[in-house]
Amino acid sequence: MQGLAIIKPSSKLQLSSFILVAAAIMLLGLAGVAHGGGRRRLVVSGSEDEPCKKMTVYYHDILYSGNNTANATSAAVTKPAAALSTSHWKNGTYFGKLVVFDDLVTEEQALSSEPVARAQGFYFYDRKERYNAWLAFSLVFNSTAYTGTLNLLGADLMAEKTRDISVVGGTGDFFMSRGVATLSLNAYEGTVYFRLKMDIKLYECYV
Amino acid sequence: MQGLAIIKPSSKLQLSSFILVAAAIMLLGLAGVAHGGGRRRLVVSGSEDEPCKKMTVYYHDILYSGNNTANATSAAVTKPAAALSTSHWKNGTYFGKLVVFDDLVTEEQALSSEPVARAQGFYFYDRKERYNAWLAFSLVFNSTAYTGTLNLLGADLMAEKTRDISVVGGTGDFFMSRGVATLSLNAYEGTVYFRLKMDIKLYECYV
Amino acid sequence: MQGLAIIKPSSKLQLSSFILVAAAIMLLGLAGVAHGGGRRRLVVSGSEDEPCKKMTVYYHDILYSGNNTANATSAAVTKPAAALSTSHWKNGTYFGKLVVFDDLVTEEQALSSEPVARAQGFYFYDRKERYNAWLAFSLVFNSTAYTGTLNLLGADLMAEKTRDISVVGGTGDFFMSRGVATLSLNAYEGTVYFRLKMDIKLYECYV
Repeated sequence: MQGLAIIKPSSKLQLSSFILVAAAIMLLGLAGVAHGGGRRRLVVSGSEDEPCKKMTVYYHDILYSGNNTANATSAAVTKPAAALSTSHWKNGTYFGKLVVFDDLVTEEQALSSEPVARAQGFYFYDRKERYNAWLAFSLVFNSTAYTGTLNLLGADLMAEKTRDISVVGGTGDFFMSRGVATLSLNAYEGTVYFRLKMDIKLYECYV
Repeated sequence: MQGLAIIKPSSKLQLSSFILVAAAIMLLGLAGVAHGGGRRRLVVSGSEDEPCKKMTVYYHDILYSGNNTANATSAAVTKPAAALSTSHWKNGTYFGKLVVFDDLVTEEQALSSEPVARAQGFYFYDRKERYNAWLAFSLVFNSTAYTGTLNLLGADLMAEKTRDISVVGGTGDFFMSRGVATLSLNAYEGTVYFRLKMDIKLYECYV
Repeated sequence: MQGLAIIKPSSKLQLSSFILVAAAIMLLGLAGVAHGGGRRRLVVSGSEDEPCKKMTVYYHDILYSGNNTANATSAAVTKPAAALSTSHWKNGTYFGKLVVFDDLVTEEQALSSEPVARAQGFYFYDRKERYNAWLAFSLVFNSTAYTGTLNLLGADLMAEKTRDISVVGGTGDFFMSRGVATLSLNAYEGTVYFRLKMDIKLYECYV
């Protein structure tokens, strides 16, 4: 719970006519409120620097290339829109190419390290001038640390060193969570493999 | 409003330096706050067992098979990524197949019962090893009971008896709602028809 | 901050056993709570008529037609599901056609006016009987007024004069925002161009 601002109303506060004021709402079970069962308390962070939960994971996309059936975890299901994709660069920017994935997610950088989740979803390239993408997916956790899912979506602005997407919901251990994930390219090998670092920061948690 | 936890701070609470503590936030219109017009109060549930709104509906997907034009409410718009789809099972897991739908949603199980909404959106299969999907859609209500939409997305983990997806927003009667929907396969007929039971539980409501 | 309802609990409120009641939660930095740094306060609107932030923008979709490579900002990446698309109308309803876009967004109506954002995402047609669509996209702002993104999705019920979709998250200047966007067709030219008016109203803001 550290890092969450605590409400310290000033002594000017008057009961008969006050403004509910807080740097953060913390909903705690108190004496009189049963714990256990399905009891959940909403915690809202009061600062971008102090999420109610955070984690860093690595997302590994191994794209089907025609001869890597055993290893591939993603595949293009549409072709680039030819004229638009090659309008600014003869090798193309993949505009319109949509990829479906079931990618490994690890806590350590290495692809061979212990997976903590699968990332299941899709991305597509959406810009004529350069590589640029949009993606939506679920992080499906099923480990000793976590079960449940986080649902994310947003613009993957590949020209930016880091770019933020939204965590729009969660289930299981991430029940009703919201937050932001900061993505950055961490490694790649030609057009077959890339690894994204994902710094996930939840600012609304039900705990 | 029953089922929502009520804040009962202990007598230890001191005005000059207190922690805002609650098992649930309930925002109620009070004397001094006009009702009517566009007035809306956020209600946050304090328990997984006690959503601020819940309903059970049945989703009917009738996939276009080549000769059911009149009845079909969905159609594949991409083909499975062949090598990946058949890498673990010769009949294929449909990896990469994307389906667009405008499906009937009913309150009773029977496909022939009174529809309460349409489910408009898409799903795709995203796993090599077995059937597994991801979906995003709107429940579009236009009945005597409700008008408005609920927007949902998440991983449809078909190997799980039940799986949870996120309700990420709503409009009209479901203005700004958030919650969780629990999906389970309720019936199917070959590859043409399946029915999902959807238990929808909203934990943030504006009422 | 005007337009947001203020909590005015009645004098009946008793500290030892009270219900936290409000028409709106306002989380303000008080004496004792540091400002600056990453400090953010959640503001929840208490009325549909009084969002915590609103703006009107125009979305311009210029669809690739085969001979407008330089101007086009979107392209179809799947074909309509033929039999379903033409089942009710011989010219077709585009059922199943999926379009990827990187569209201009302006504050003034004119396509030639100053862009304030790009809209990056996709839409697809999803109904046999008539034009009807579903869409998900990010508004990517990079102007003097705003940087950051808003993430939106929902049913684009084209038969309705106005229709609401959800703002499910945001980043940068729109950190963690939620709201509703009201869409209406503002202009179109054949099948190549259409312009949507988007009235964006945020009801949860972190400021």
